[in-house]
Parts: sequence; structure tokens; C-alpha cells
Amino acid sequence: MKRKKIGILGGGQLARMLALKAHPLGLEPYVLSPSKEDPAAKVTRFWIKGHLDRISHLKLFLKKTDIVTFENEFINTSLLLQAMKEVHTKIIPHPRVIEKFQDRWLQKKLLEEYNIPTSPFLKIDSYSDLLNAFEYFREKMVLKKRRFGYDGNGTFIIKNKKELKKCKFLFKNKTNSSTNAFTGFIAEKFIPFQKELALILVSHKNSEVISLPLVETFQKNFQCYWVKGPVSHVKIHKLTALLKNFIKKIEYEGVITFEIFQSLEGLLINETAPRVHNSGHYSLNALSKDQFTLHLESVLRRPIQPPTLLCKGFAMLNLLGQREIKSDWQKSKGIFLHEYGKKERKKGRKMGHLNACTDSPEKALNQLLKVKKYFS
Amino acid sequence: MKRKKIGILGGGQLARMLALKAHPLGLEPYVLSPSKEDPAAKVTRFWIKGHLDRISHLKLFLKKTDIVTFENEFINTSLLLQAMKEVHTKIIPHPRVIEKFQDRWLQKKLLEEYNIPTSPFLKIDSYSDLLNAFEYFREKMVLKKRRFGYDGNGTFIIKNKKELKKCKFLFKNKTNSSTNAFTGFIAEKFIPFQKELALILVSHKNSEVISLPLVETFQKNFQCYWVKGPVSHVKIHKLTALLKNFIKKIEYEGVITFEIFQSLEGLLINETAPRVHNSGHYSLNALSKDQFTLHLESVLRRPIQPPTLLCKGFAMLNLLGQREIKSDWQKSKGIFLHEYGKKERKKGRKMGHLNACTDSPEKALNQLLKVKKYFS
Repeated sequence: MKRKKIGILGGGQLARMLALKAHPLGLEPYVLSPSKEDPAAKVTRFWIKGHLDRISHLKLFLKKTDIVTFENEFINTSLLLQAMKEVHTKIIPHPRVIEKFQDRWLQKKLLEEYNIPTSPFLKIDSYSDLLNAFEYFREKMVLKKRRFGYDGNGTFIIKNKKELKKCKFLFKNKTNSSTNAFTGFIAEKFIPFQKELALILVSHKNSEVISLPLVETFQKNFQCYWVKGPVSHVKIHKLTALLKNFIKKIEYEGVITFEIFQSLEGLLINETAPRVHNSGHYSLNALSKDQFTLHLESVLRRPIQPPTLLCKGFAMLNLLGQREIKSDWQKSKGIFLHEYGKKERKKGRKMGHLNACTDSPEKALNQLLKVKKYFS
Repeated sequence: MKRKKIGILGGGQLARMLALKAHPLGLEPYVLSPSKEDPAAKVTRFWIKGHLDRISHLKLFLKKTDIVTFENEFINTSLLLQAMKEVHTKIIPHPRVIEKFQDRWLQKKLLEEYNIPTSPFLKIDSYSDLLNAFEYFREKMVLKKRRFGYDGNGTFIIKNKKELKKCKFLFKNKTNSSTNAFTGFIAEKFIPFQKELALILVSHKNSEVISLPLVETFQKNFQCYWVKGPVSHVKIHKLTALLKNFIKKIEYEGVITFEIFQSLEGLLINETAPRVHNSGHYSLNALSKDQFTLHLESVLRRPIQPPTLLCKGFAMLNLLGQREIKSDWQKSKGIFLHEYGKKERKKGRKMGHLNACTDSPEKALNQLLKVKKYFS
């Protein structure tokens, strides 16, 4: 029996959950990652050792697979475009689209172009640019690396002159080592938000865009700590319509995630992640179809259907840096573990997550916060 | 991070689904099977090539793992008991218990011993035994191989003298080749059942036995074709209580499946399978926790909870011998594919299954029968 070989670039937990969901769909999930200890390498026989920044490895991987997707947007799009030219395996979402999302400045420009509400921003290439921005934003702003920032890495909140000066070092050595190349920054107006929300859309070449339930997300040290839902907001329908139109226009395919500030100024897009996302992990237990399956189905251009909500309220709690799991947590009903198989624990490292499904978002979240003590 | 290595003996679809569900639980699923093309070998990095009937392979496998379970009862229990003595890795359910279930005669005796209603039976070691049974059962009976029968292999319905004579050959060469050794037969009274039902119980060393929803199963050529549920029967509560008591008494651990005849004589146990079962595959989409996860959790003696039903009605349809899948089936809402990754298609081979979840069992089954045309 002929099965589609779906390539997944990257071996982290997102790749792992994509691979786990690829098997039942009748796909052979090929994973390209450097170590056999990578979370995704453990869940498929079709793991290929390799580096995502080596053209020879990429070409070999594309040759072995029928269609390729990736776990996150930190991919070398120019290398991928070069590999695609030579090998002709489709990469979905298309690297040309990803190019715009992986660079925060280009991403903001793109949102602006489609009239998507987002905070005001400035391109920052030097310390003097930063000084100007500090004045422009009235001494309250957020500085972000244009590329490769995640979980607060490369993000600096600047609320006074002291914090401003602290950022001077960022512009000292523009000719850093190649692995840490200077890619510039953007400064954004600091938004005193009330809540952070997240919205996941699933875009399909041949059908309507699907939206998953709106969720509230809570960050701790810039890192997602919990998610609960479904939540609602009076302006979400209008924003969803705008976003659906936007991703259709740019011909995006697959799952895409919008992080949203709920503020006095209304709903503003904070960041966009062109991929499956931590804020959608609840879907593994709370929806009839999870974000990973939906991503694969839309990448493969198989028909997709809006999933059904399986409980009135759900929550997700990240397990950050946990080493030990006492099985006592299982005494609580309706809680589900998703462990990532990481070899080494580090402080703050995402080791897994818990989902809860019950009568309300608040109850679900409380259940998770209660069992957290069994994970140390 | 230290993870439990759970060994799974066998590499078929049941092992595959066990392995897929082991990953999120923070387990490393080790699979022992002969070929890397086996369904379960494709979903884990921890596949070990080997034969279940070689003591050296079993011992090596037990050494590598922390705890071992199996996908079906056709295991060589004496080899396993020998391996366990030398290596001290626990095998759950215990091979001593499996010994009684894998032999239909011992199984029937066990059921009788615990007053579980089942059809009358006789042990058959020779053709003259069969002739006597034919008279005893008033010329209507079912002849079954005591060991290694499945999906009707080794089952013969005898309703007249012609059919009786046809079975003579079975007793000709008692000294067959070792792979096809003569293990004897049992004859059972032929039960003109109205329906076939199945009940899955989950037995845990430290807690109450859990029962999953009762389902109706439909066989075609002795092979499970579809399942629908939940269904009910006025006598099921009494039978469930009997069965729960039975498996607690024999200290069974893990998932166990009872195939039940609904007949004019009431509910009778037809066969018992000490394992996850085709009649429980619906649980992957219709229950908050599936039979594979429940089996693993009880084998590991982690606390378990009764799962919640996620829809009013569900159904499961086996994909038998399918080669091709047209993705049009995905246009129907609430249908889920579970493909098994088998290398070669054969007539009648279980290639995967479909689940449906909707408002009623009948509606779910109809949905599946409608989309069947897309699988050829």
C-alpha cells in the first residue's frame, strides 16, 4: 500500500505531536533533526539525522518525502527555496510566506498592509533609532529582535532611561558570530493589556478558513504558562473575519496562530505564528480533531471540517522544567498528560503539558493548578 | 529524565495503537516483532527485531524494558514464564492467567468455575469425541480449535452429517508440523443468537474495575465488520457485576474483552480476549480516554478513572483489505481514520478502521457505511 511520506522539519515537541497524529492518517512521518534523542525522533521509524541549515541535508530530505511541512517558522527559507527548486517537493506553508512571518518587521508591515489592528511599531537598526523610538513611544516600549526570538528570548521591555541604556549593548557588535548574526530589531508601543488571547485558524487551499475556539493565555516570564477556553469577546467576530480574509489573500495553507492583546484600545494582534502553537495544545483532548491533525489535513489538501468542542470548558498547563511525575495526579478525573520525551530537563524547558476538560474554563484551570504539585 | 520503558510483545495494529498512546504518557514503547515493516515498528524508535517464540529474544527484550505487556493472547506462556524467572521483568497481564484464556477449553472451564453464563461445551480430542458431541448437542454445534484461532480461523459450524464428516480431516494427523501442532478442540452448543455484544472491562490492581460502554458487534465471515454503541440490555448490569467479580478474583490486570451472545436464553459469554480488542477501537474518538491508554495505565498501576462518553452515539467500521483511500470521505463530518501502516494488502486483512461520533449509534453506523465507497 502506497502511503504519503510527510516530511517534518525539526524534532521538538511540535514535530512530535505532528508525527504522532500523522500515523493514524495513513502517512509516514519523516522527521529531520540532529539527534535521535529529539522528541519527534522517538515516535517514528522514519527519522533522518540532519541539520536544517545544511542544503545537502535539506535536499536529501526533500527527495525522500512527498510533501514537507515544519514545526516552527525558524527555518532558513532561502536554503529551503533553493532546495525546492532542485528537488520539486512541495513545502507547505510556502517558505515565501514564512519569510514574512519569521521577521517581526515584515510581519508587522504585512498586518498593516491588510488593515489588521496591531500596535504601532518602528524599525530599529541602531541605538540612535532606539533613542528616537523611546521619544516617539513616550518612554514606554517593547524592543524585539526581528528574527529567531521566542518565549521572551530577544524581547526587552523598556519603561525608563535606565532600561533604555541597558539595551545599548545590543547594538555594539553588529558583526557577531554567524550563529548569532545581527538581524535588527523592532520597537513597539507598550500595550497595557487586560488579557492575552489567542486565535488559531486553519487555512485550506480549497475550502473556507476554519477558526478554533478563542482562548485566554497567561504568560509567566514571557513563556506560556496556561491556556483556558472557550472565551469570547464582543469584537472577536469582526477580527476573525478580517484575519480569515487576510490569510486567504496571502494564500496561506495550514494552521496559523494569532496572539492577541485585549486592551482598552480593543483587540490588537501581538504576534503571529505560522504554525501549530502552544495555545492550541488543549485541542488534543477538548476538540473532536486536534490542531496537529488539522494542520496535516490542510497541508495535504484533504477536505477539512470544523471540529466539535467536546466539553464546556478546557484548560492547558505547561510543565516547565519538570523532572519527576508522581502518578497521584491521575486520581483527578478528566486530566490528560502529554509528555514530550525530552532527554534533559532544564529550568523553564517545556517537558510536557496537561489538559483538562470539564464544565467551565475556570474549573478546568483550577483542576490543573491543583494537580501541579505532583509534577516537580 | 527517567522514563519507564514499556515493552509490547508483537508488532500488529493493536501493538501500534498501544505504542502511539504510550508516547504521550511519558513512556518509551519498546516493540518486539520480526519485521521493521510491522505496523507497530513504524511508530517508535524503540523497535527491536526478534521472534516471540525464541527464548533468547524474549530474555533480551525483558532485560531492556521495565515492564512488559502484549498485544494478544497468542503468546508462548511457558517461554515467557521461563524468561521472567531469569530476568525479573514483570509481564502484565500475568502469563499464568493468559495460559487459561488462550486455550478455549481452559477458558470455558474458568468461566464455568465462576458461574459466568456461557454455552455448554465439550472437550474434543478425537473424531469419536466429535461424533458423541454431535449427538449430545442434537446435531447443531460449533467446533473450535483450542488454541491460536482468530477471526474464524479454526472455527467450524456443524449443522448436519455432511458438515460433520468434513471435519474428520482435522483429526487425521495429530502429529503435524510443530508450527501447526494439534492442540485439540472444543465443541460448543450452537447458539442462535439475536445479536452479538461486546463488553470491555479495565481491571486495576489497586482500584475498582471499570466497564466501558456496551456495544453491538457485527461479524462478516467470522470477522468483525462493524461496532456500534452505546447499547443496553436489561441483563447487562447483573452480568457486568459477575464479570467484574470474576476478573478481580483471578487477579487479572489490564483491559479484557467479553464477546457476548444476546439470545433467547439471555446473555451468554461467547469468547473472552484478555487484551485490547477490535470492539473497543471506537474509544479512540468516542471516549475521553481510549482502551489503549487505559490498558497501559492499569498495567503500570497508575490510578485510572472511568472515561466519559463524548457523543450520544458512535460506530466503528473495519477497513478490510483496502488498498486505496480517496480523501473525499473527509467531506463527511465527525468521521475519523485510523490506518495501520501495513506493508501489504490482502483480502480481508485489517488495514485500518473508521470511527464516527454523532447523535445516535444508528446514525454513526450509517455515516460509515456511506463513506465506505471511498475505500477500495
